[in-house]
Amino acid sequence: MTDRKLPATLRFMLAARRSELLGLEDLTRTCELVTQVSRLVHALQKERGYSNIYLSGTGPHHLQKLDSLSLEVDRLEREVRESLECMDLESIHSADKTRLFSRIAYALYSLDELPALRRAVREQRISMQEATTTLVRLIGGLLSVVFEAADTAADPDITRALVALFNFMQGKELAGQERALGVAGFASGYFDSERLERMQQLMDAQERCFATFSRFAENEALDRWHALCQGEISQQVAQLREVAQRTRDDSRVDTSLCELWFELQTQRVDEMKEVEAQLEWDLLEHCRRSMERINADLHNHRPLLDRLSHMHAAAENAMLFSIQAREMDAPPEDGMTGSVERSTLELLQLQTQRLQRVNDELKEARQALNERKLIERAKKLLMDQYGLSESDAHSRLRQAAMDQGIRMDELAQRLLANAANDKPPRQGQSRPRARRG
Amino acid sequence: MTDRKLPATLRFMLAARRSELLGLEDLTRTCELVTQVSRLVHALQKERGYSNIYLSGTGPHHLQKLDSLSLEVDRLEREVRESLECMDLESIHSADKTRLFSRIAYALYSLDELPALRRAVREQRISMQEATTTLVRLIGGLLSVVFEAADTAADPDITRALVALFNFMQGKELAGQERALGVAGFASGYFDSERLERMQQLMDAQERCFATFSRFAENEALDRWHALCQGEISQQVAQLREVAQRTRDDSRVDTSLCELWFELQTQRVDEMKEVEAQLEWDLLEHCRRSMERINADLHNHRPLLDRLSHMHAAAENAMLFSIQAREMDAPPEDGMTGSVERSTLELLQLQTQRLQRVNDELKEARQALNERKLIERAKKLLMDQYGLSESDAHSRLRQAAMDQGIRMDELAQRLLANAANDKPPRQGQSRPRARRG
Repeated sequence: MTDRKLPATLRFMLAARRSELLGLEDLTRTCELVTQVSRLVHALQKERGYSNIYLSGTGPHHLQKLDSLSLEVDRLEREVRESLECMDLESIHSADKTRLFSRIAYALYSLDELPALRRAVREQRISMQEATTTLVRLIGGLLSVVFEAADTAADPDITRALVALFNFMQGKELAGQERALGVAGFASGYFDSERLERMQQLMDAQERCFATFSRFAENEALDRWHALCQGEISQQVAQLREVAQRTRDDSRVDTSLCELWFELQTQRVDEMKEVEAQLEWDLLEHCRRSMERINADLHNHRPLLDRLSHMHAAAENAMLFSIQAREMDAPPEDGMTGSVERSTLELLQLQTQRLQRVNDELKEARQALNERKLIERAKKLLMDQYGLSESDAHSRLRQAAMDQGIRMDELAQRLLANAANDKPPRQGQSRPRARRG
Repeated sequence: MTDRKLPATLRFMLAARRSELLGLEDLTRTCELVTQVSRLVHALQKERGYSNIYLSGTGPHHLQKLDSLSLEVDRLEREVRESLECMDLESIHSADKTRLFSRIAYALYSLDELPALRRAVREQRISMQEATTTLVRLIGGLLSVVFEAADTAADPDITRALVALFNFMQGKELAGQERALGVAGFASGYFDSERLERMQQLMDAQERCFATFSRFAENEALDRWHALCQGEISQQVAQLREVAQRTRDDSRVDTSLCELWFELQTQRVDEMKEVEAQLEWDLLEHCRRSMERINADLHNHRPLLDRLSHMHAAAENAMLFSIQAREMDAPPEDGMTGSVERSTLELLQLQTQRLQRVNDELKEARQALNERKLIERAKKLLMDQYGLSESDAHSRLRQAAMDQGIRMDELAQRLLANAANDKPPRQGQSRPRARRG
């Protein structure tokens, strides 16, 4: 029986299920892309690290390693590009892809800068800071693809897994930035107050990311993460952080600590990659399980719908012969119409309840993403309004939140709300008035 | 040039725009359906009104009118069903249709009850209250289609128009329920305390709906609404409400007031329909304007992308002949690569900013829907937990919110959060642990 011949009610019930399945298939493809992006980000972080140590002048012998890392990035970039190439964009009818596709476009745009950057690094025609800035922006573009995937996913378990992965990736990226900062500091023999403040910010921000990751990750990943935090490498990194904090212009340390710091932080980031690999595995496993569940549902659902549909047809026939049939206040004599209606209604109610539950569960995970968006946008606002650096904007936001005894995201929300109220209305569009007197 | 040959960045930029356009086309179709649903709801409300007056025994002469109203409902129902039939569900690849389709399925399911209900009314085999309950449920199912359309729309102006329309429809529906309640009350000569309390609730709830409508509607609709509120009919309805409130078992009024009440309330609801027609017009007008805007954007965008794409290709060629090209720290000699990159980046940034603005504007309108969802679900919770009627659940929620000096939706949120915390975790799924020590 084709769908067209089903009664309209059943046709829409089935279409709702099919829409759910298509959404999940699409989400699964996005998650596969996300795991590829995560591997590319890791390789880029490594290339950034070795670019910095090479530019610091303390490790000219790292050039060969740097070259092989660039090749690894190229290989992973090709993988991502091939996956993107396989997406048949012409046939995608889904209306909610706008933001994800825009993020991908931006990430691709940034990746195009890579060859020129590499030449500049090899020829030492670029400062460590410039190289870092470019790669931070590039990696940021890739992270925003993961963020958007998490923010538009409609399956609660998969969304939780994406939120855990995104926050872990972000924490790891901040660890990579801390590594770069430390290389610059140790290479010059001491850390000035600006670098020390920035380092503290990076440590705080890492802590926040890993706290959110811990709320949403599952046991295996958490176990690995706790083992890493309690391991020797982490202890040694903590010791070197203290060394860094004690340095002054007139109390310098041996620049050879630069290599040690770099080695330790690189090992730490590499260990993080193993947690990340677990998170990637968890993510794809959730996709697989959700797909299995929905397929099983559809499998059970379809025969039920078919049976219901036959019963509907039979009931309609029966009615032709009985003007008494389908009365509201008396069960029909053959009991059939009543049972068809009950079964249909039960199915509908189950579906509605399930969708409601899905929505509730999504809300919690999305909230975590929203907090992060608010803080980023409030920072941006402060940077634009007062010409602050990102670091200064962050400090100011953090201090003001502490002063007022509220969370940073609450303060961010207030700032943004105030800014929105001060703004003139958009032009070229009629805006509804506020309630009139 | 086909998309496939565009550089990947531009291909995804274009895909993002196309996805936006498809979303809007789809939303426009949904809005057209919504206006048909709104007209069907109005006709059903009218049929409910005349069914009640017929069942009240005071208006047997209304049978002919009732029959013609049933025919009108049939005609509008056919229109809705034909629109639904035209939706080619097989080819809809959009993943976010699950909830809307489920709502439509439920509405269709409820509409199937109509023929049996009508027979029962004509044969006077059903009480006024039963008939009202069935039709309230049926209309509720149709309203939830409008709610879902508003909740999933991704265009801020259209969402605002849908929120205004939904709240107005809901307010009008409550006015229709008040009409039914009044018919029952006046037909029996007086209002017992239960009916009076219910009447007060219906009046309060209407006020809330119309307040939300006023926040989101535009000038023309608001002007009509204010004229209606200050008009003679509204004054007379207010007077009859006062009469109702003064009745007692031992101080009855003439049952002929039943007809007067019914006439006045019917005129009031018919006038509301004119405001609703304006809201429908505003809604479709917003669809038309957004469509025009996005088509103009695409029209301007496409040649720009083509030009960019040619420039990208030319720049790549140029690079083959110059190892100096695409350096980060010096502008390329022909200035082309630089300008290609700037144009691409500007386009990307414009797109990102626009999407951000869209998101902010959506948030406000969705908030209004969310408040309503919270209250409805908290009521449902109280009904299930304490076996309360809907009316009692509503009173209790309202009283508790007043006692605690908070808004009803805040209280509802707390109740639901508490209930969720008390619930055991779902089975058959691994749930992430809370953060570990």
